[in-house]
Amino acid sequence: MSDVSAVCAAAKTAAPALARTSTAQRDAVLEAMAGAIDGGHDAILAANRRDLDAGAEAGLSSAMLDRLRLDPDRLRGVAAGLRELTDLPDPLGRVVRGFTLPNGLDVRQVTVPLGVIAMVYEGRPNVTVDAAGLAVKSGNACVLRGSSSAINSNVALAELLRAAVADRGLPAELVSLITDTGRESVKHLGRARGLVDLLIPRGGAGLISAVVAESQVPVIETGVGNCHVYVDRAADLDMAVDIVANAKVHRPSVCNAAETLLVHRDVADAFLPRVAERLTADGVVLRGDEATRAVIPAEPASAEDWDTEYLDLTLAVGVVDGLDDALAHIARHGTLHTEAIVTQDRAAARRFTSEVDAAAVMVNASTRFTDGGEFGFGAEIGISTQKLHARGPMGLAELVTTKYIVEGDGQVRR
Amino acid sequence: MSDVSAVCAAAKTAAPALARTSTAQRDAVLEAMAGAIDGGHDAILAANRRDLDAGAEAGLSSAMLDRLRLDPDRLRGVAAGLRELTDLPDPLGRVVRGFTLPNGLDVRQVTVPLGVIAMVYEGRPNVTVDAAGLAVKSGNACVLRGSSSAINSNVALAELLRAAVADRGLPAELVSLITDTGRESVKHLGRARGLVDLLIPRGGAGLISAVVAESQVPVIETGVGNCHVYVDRAADLDMAVDIVANAKVHRPSVCNAAETLLVHRDVADAFLPRVAERLTADGVVLRGDEATRAVIPAEPASAEDWDTEYLDLTLAVGVVDGLDDALAHIARHGTLHTEAIVTQDRAAARRFTSEVDAAAVMVNASTRFTDGGEFGFGAEIGISTQKLHARGPMGLAELVTTKYIVEGDGQVRR
Repeated sequence: MSDVSAVCAAAKTAAPALARTSTAQRDAVLEAMAGAIDGGHDAILAANRRDLDAGAEAGLSSAMLDRLRLDPDRLRGVAAGLRELTDLPDPLGRVVRGFTLPNGLDVRQVTVPLGVIAMVYEGRPNVTVDAAGLAVKSGNACVLRGSSSAINSNVALAELLRAAVADRGLPAELVSLITDTGRESVKHLGRARGLVDLLIPRGGAGLISAVVAESQVPVIETGVGNCHVYVDRAADLDMAVDIVANAKVHRPSVCNAAETLLVHRDVADAFLPRVAERLTADGVVLRGDEATRAVIPAEPASAEDWDTEYLDLTLAVGVVDGLDDALAHIARHGTLHTEAIVTQDRAAARRFTSEVDAAAVMVNASTRFTDGGEFGFGAEIGISTQKLHARGPMGLAELVTTKYIVEGDGQVRR
Repeated sequence: MSDVSAVCAAAKTAAPALARTSTAQRDAVLEAMAGAIDGGHDAILAANRRDLDAGAEAGLSSAMLDRLRLDPDRLRGVAAGLRELTDLPDPLGRVVRGFTLPNGLDVRQVTVPLGVIAMVYEGRPNVTVDAAGLAVKSGNACVLRGSSSAINSNVALAELLRAAVADRGLPAELVSLITDTGRESVKHLGRARGLVDLLIPRGGAGLISAVVAESQVPVIETGVGNCHVYVDRAADLDMAVDIVANAKVHRPSVCNAAETLLVHRDVADAFLPRVAERLTADGVVLRGDEATRAVIPAEPASAEDWDTEYLDLTLAVGVVDGLDDALAHIARHGTLHTEAIVTQDRAAARRFTSEVDAAAVMVNASTRFTDGGEFGFGAEIGISTQKLHARGPMGLAELVTTKYIVEGDGQVRR
């Protein structure tokens, strides 16, 4: 048994103790975890300093160092996140369906914890706390495997969280950290059949593909978003400029940012110069197909551009012959995350929402709205881009499963 | 690209045409499929004859030959099953959640098809028709891979179904059969990422493990059921005899049949002789632990017996020290399918339903009730023993996913 399996087995053994707790007990654990973060600034920041120094020495980019950095403000935010969870409704013990059968059997389908949720993530150490909080609130043990760059921060955070859990009389193994940050440890997590009930990879496309390819435990893919905005012939072009600019520029590094703009040929001459002016002013580099470059200056787009999630201020721009062409482009290059149409044509909007295969389809709105916070879920563990169990923003309601409870007085089948 | 990938790709390409149909159109396809079965008895039975002859030559058991056998009565039942689907509510287009955000965005989470459902199954050729019907009703293309023993029957059935689909103006590839019944074809199905949205293995534990181990597409495990009945100290012993006998004898070959009986030590002397008398009269072979064999005659149970899904008239019997011991035994040996307690003690029943980790937990009822038909779902594609997406009997409602449709009038994120 590898170390990873041993950690998962310990989490599995610990899980029932949490599953048996009341809402109030789990909220008390969250409060204790928040208190531990509040009281642990010195230890956390010292550990984070070691990660930052190592990162600087290893030549991490300033963006990556910023993501790695913790400070008292960020730590207060992390603790506040834990306390906000205590205000959210308990996802457990909800009766999803209930009926009495003709033979008198009472059937209830109730929400229960999954058991052990494993999570593999990159960069930000605050994910360690966010994920542990969501797991505790939903009654699940968690096994966390962060990146090597944040290992000291993650160890410091996990130690505080585990002490808080133990302090409330529960097994510390409910919050488990895999300290082996080699590639093999991810593989071992994926092979822990019977020990890991759900594995969530959060990170780049490479990490996610590797996890899916190597895993035998149930996986929910999150976060790869090659999102398109299609500006229809019948679009309000002012609105379209605002939506494209927001979708690209508001926060380019996240999965619900737009990566490709598709423009109906009939409005290309009118629209492209206006959107180019706005985007260029915002510092966006454009990569256009031939038809686009006939109207505005842009770098030439290669075949590869249509499949690239830039995650920065670059946008691929293509001219399409109409809705069919746009739908075909999106079907080929989309990642089932978020796709948007800008149009005043009701029929076009209905076809787009009905035919596009994605977790979220926007009409006359920015792709940036696919977000658990924006949807009012209060907390989000990621955005599922697959179709089983959870699709789109995943909140607490997606971190549970159900169980049928059937009560009778001696019924047998005839 | 293997042949299997090509078949999956064709199904994927065909799928949107079905997703766009109305309820009435899909019901018309089902009616046409039923008509094709009705009109195709000669062709189907001739093909089935070839499978039966080959099976007899290959030395298949009479039970297996019976499962393989089609006759006019069974074919009428298969067609009736398709027509019954037309009476069930459409699982598509249901608004699961809907809300308007403070910024005016209208958000609806609606049910949509998964896309392509692949199914690997053994034995009975009627599964070919049942699975195709469930897929059509739920708006999904299907790729079916049955067993080599039923290949001629499956080809004949699939040809008729495909002709019926084409006859209704839809692509025949919506119902696709993999005719390569070698082990490799299952592996290729599991590797068809982006082409297969859900893979459902239906069969023995070996098949299911192999599919899970080798697949990169989302899988729902079905059907392995090492189900227990625990007879508590506070059980009504007459009721317990009826429940144990029903759970074991009513249909021993299915996954919700009981495989192990656990008896509280305090009632072992009173209960075991009674249940043994009934079970022995019904032809059940008992395999008992030492404490059991001190009370009734039984073959000695080996360690392996506690993990065996006999699927025939054999029952493992163990004496436990109480509820804790029973819960520990079930946690170690259960397959998360169905577990039952017989007791008049409210506290024991509550602990059992709360602490047992299984798709269904029965109190004073036979394990045999975990069934889509019994639950009133009208049609069942299998019983999920995993925790993601679907747990327990899977009907039409479990063969769909959701999509968020967000409609606005120019909203952008601030």
